[in-house]
Amino acid sequence: MAVSSQKFQAPKGTRDFYPADLAVRRHIENVWRQVSINHGFEEIDGPTFEHLELYTHKSGPGIASELFQVMSGKDEEQIAAIRAGGAAPFALRPEFTPTLARMVAAKAAELPRPIKWFAIPSHFRAERPQRGRLREFMQWNVDFIGDDSPRADAEVIATAVMAFEQLGLTPGDVRVHISDRRAIAAYLTGEGIAPERHPSVFDFLDRSSKLPQEEFAKQAESLGLKAYAVLPFAGRRALDVHVPKGSDTLLKEVSLTAHTMHSQFQALEQLFSELKHMDLEAWCDIDVSIVRGLAYYTGTVFEIHEATGAERAIAGGGRYDNLIESFGGPKLAACGFGMGDVVLANTLRDKGLLKPEEEYLPRPDAFVIAADDDAAAKMPAIVAQLRKHDLHIRQSYKTTRNVGKLLGDASKCRARFAVILGKKLAENIVELKNMDGGEQREIALSELANALKRSP
Amino acid sequence: MAVSSQKFQAPKGTRDFYPADLAVRRHIENVWRQVSINHGFEEIDGPTFEHLELYTHKSGPGIASELFQVMSGKDEEQIAAIRAGGAAPFALRPEFTPTLARMVAAKAAELPRPIKWFAIPSHFRAERPQRGRLREFMQWNVDFIGDDSPRADAEVIATAVMAFEQLGLTPGDVRVHISDRRAIAAYLTGEGIAPERHPSVFDFLDRSSKLPQEEFAKQAESLGLKAYAVLPFAGRRALDVHVPKGSDTLLKEVSLTAHTMHSQFQALEQLFSELKHMDLEAWCDIDVSIVRGLAYYTGTVFEIHEATGAERAIAGGGRYDNLIESFGGPKLAACGFGMGDVVLANTLRDKGLLKPEEEYLPRPDAFVIAADDDAAAKMPAIVAQLRKHDLHIRQSYKTTRNVGKLLGDASKCRARFAVILGKKLAENIVELKNMDGGEQREIALSELANALKRSP
Repeated sequence: MAVSSQKFQAPKGTRDFYPADLAVRRHIENVWRQVSINHGFEEIDGPTFEHLELYTHKSGPGIASELFQVMSGKDEEQIAAIRAGGAAPFALRPEFTPTLARMVAAKAAELPRPIKWFAIPSHFRAERPQRGRLREFMQWNVDFIGDDSPRADAEVIATAVMAFEQLGLTPGDVRVHISDRRAIAAYLTGEGIAPERHPSVFDFLDRSSKLPQEEFAKQAESLGLKAYAVLPFAGRRALDVHVPKGSDTLLKEVSLTAHTMHSQFQALEQLFSELKHMDLEAWCDIDVSIVRGLAYYTGTVFEIHEATGAERAIAGGGRYDNLIESFGGPKLAACGFGMGDVVLANTLRDKGLLKPEEEYLPRPDAFVIAADDDAAAKMPAIVAQLRKHDLHIRQSYKTTRNVGKLLGDASKCRARFAVILGKKLAENIVELKNMDGGEQREIALSELANALKRSP
Repeated sequence: MAVSSQKFQAPKGTRDFYPADLAVRRHIENVWRQVSINHGFEEIDGPTFEHLELYTHKSGPGIASELFQVMSGKDEEQIAAIRAGGAAPFALRPEFTPTLARMVAAKAAELPRPIKWFAIPSHFRAERPQRGRLREFMQWNVDFIGDDSPRADAEVIATAVMAFEQLGLTPGDVRVHISDRRAIAAYLTGEGIAPERHPSVFDFLDRSSKLPQEEFAKQAESLGLKAYAVLPFAGRRALDVHVPKGSDTLLKEVSLTAHTMHSQFQALEQLFSELKHMDLEAWCDIDVSIVRGLAYYTGTVFEIHEATGAERAIAGGGRYDNLIESFGGPKLAACGFGMGDVVLANTLRDKGLLKPEEEYLPRPDAFVIAADDDAAAKMPAIVAQLRKHDLHIRQSYKTTRNVGKLLGDASKCRARFAVILGKKLAENIVELKNMDGGEQREIALSELANALKRSP
């Protein structure tokens, strides 16, 4: 059958993980998992695809164009509906929070509080792939539900920071930028912006650092904002927005308000006090330009960036106290974050914090070599026996009996020991070579499994 | 926004994994992973969705109706093509083998041989959900590539069997049913069926055990087969197909041929000799009714079933020596199997081989309790400090200072120790209670982390 070779490649923006690639991903995932468990979070998982309405419910129908849509090829009705101009019934999950909110809402009465959950599934976005942004990626989600105090925000941030520490990053490498939507909202209200207009202002501010200056001013104006008055919230842009004569003082005041927000807003101040108790202050900054794009945030919002700002955000999160209720659950305070694997791995690689990929592969306990054909015939039984002792055993499948060459294979796969089945095999004696130290000795087959055990 | 509550449930045939559910799944996956590694297989992963053509390439366009199809909601062209009557460009993976074949073909020149890979990803089928068959499920894939000898088949089967042993199953619980398409093909050729008609006969035989007697005879006839002559290959059906007078002897011969096939066909005989060396004979049976539905199998085929036949197949696999070449790679012999999590978990549960789900959750090293408000204020710092020692620490978030009640919470989450921050905290002394043994003693804060370390 003639099929273009492009069809035999991974879809654009997705990844093939060969053993060494996956070993690096598992290294990161294992740190995420152990750190989550140590912080008292329990792992959950949900479906890879959900009803499309789970996503449009909070974000509106527009989100459908940013998702991979899914339909059953068997369901004539679904296909007919799409051909008639409708959307597909399902979507690949772009984020985990709606699944989490749905799961909490479904069992809210029986789940012990607080609910502390994490998940490490695949996520999908129908966007143009670019550095740090793929169409399928792994994302670590950590959520603390049923506690509205700053200690919950702090514990969630502590969990992210501990993962950085375990991966070798320092406060000089990554920064946690923290703000609070309640604080920004209070400021906006002070500027005469009514609360019902805040969601569109948040959305504008979140996008604003990517807007050209002129466009920024124009959009600000159309939202009824004085551009210079929201400048401090608009990210790391140069201060060249037109400031009307006589408003220099105002601008200074605005900046001051923004940068001292934490001392004026109790929640932000309490959060920083908790972070200090937990010895996390060195990692964290107030950054009033952090707003977060998702509509469901209600309080603390934060993003974690590489310190020089060279990469996309490593993680983002915040407090979403109304979301569970909107999915049919009780009113339950909640906060959490998502951290993708792509930007994190880029950051670790750039800072020299990843070993050569092969070193993340599991080390074989032994590589078994047959020095003659008789030994080769007996090898499968010996190897099978060793594996019954929960040992990682490889073997030579080659027809060569050149022991030196085969020891090279043992060394290439980083085996701890080589076991050479040679002349004394008839007496149930084999050679055991320590591949790290180099020593070689004879050993009885009956003692071999014990000698290969990893020291605890 | 009014949305029916059905939209807030997992799509039919998919699963929400709450912590205890996921802990059971992880228990099974961890056994799969460790057994694979011990047998020298390396873990890989691929995209969750692939180009639809990757699946239609070997199975024809009909397969598209059994898949979940995927399209980018952003791509107007893709949507227009579907609305014009076409299929979606992508599909959620229904099986892992095409991804594997594509990955091997892409790097065949540089990969050391043999290639021994495993994967444990999600899979998807657009079928009506029923016991043992869901629309999203986990599947363990084990593949041995670049070795055409029966030892490769045997090692792959050994890997599956070792997982059963580790999960507590015995040869009395599950059986490996083995056949060989080369042997069946030789028999069919002897019956006058030309090789080019074998694929449709294999397909018929694979479906045949589900056919009513009459339908079986009818379809056999339409394929040019004498129904009684293919009876032995048609699964565990009663022998009441009409046998023409005078053909009793033939029928006996057919049965005999089938049941002694392994001694007549070298490959099958060699495989059983390898299985014997590896001490696996007790788990394995010749079963000529095993054909496997997928078109790409070329030699050994096997299915693993619960011994009484009560469930769907736990696993299925075989040899597919032409597949890699058909995806643009070199001619490379290959064999492997897939094992889903759903039927396996049902089997383990039915045989009483799963503990209560909660017992698979990780045990906290300590649950920290504040006996007064001063202690509560100091708790976050103490907890954060303990977690820096890679310890799994939980804490009480309750406002109660009733130590007895809080010890109940420590016990509920199966903590190894309770740490009580009480009156002597000012002197940096706390109470340490062993939740297994019950002993309680005072300990200096500085010694606490060390006392909580798990013995290796």
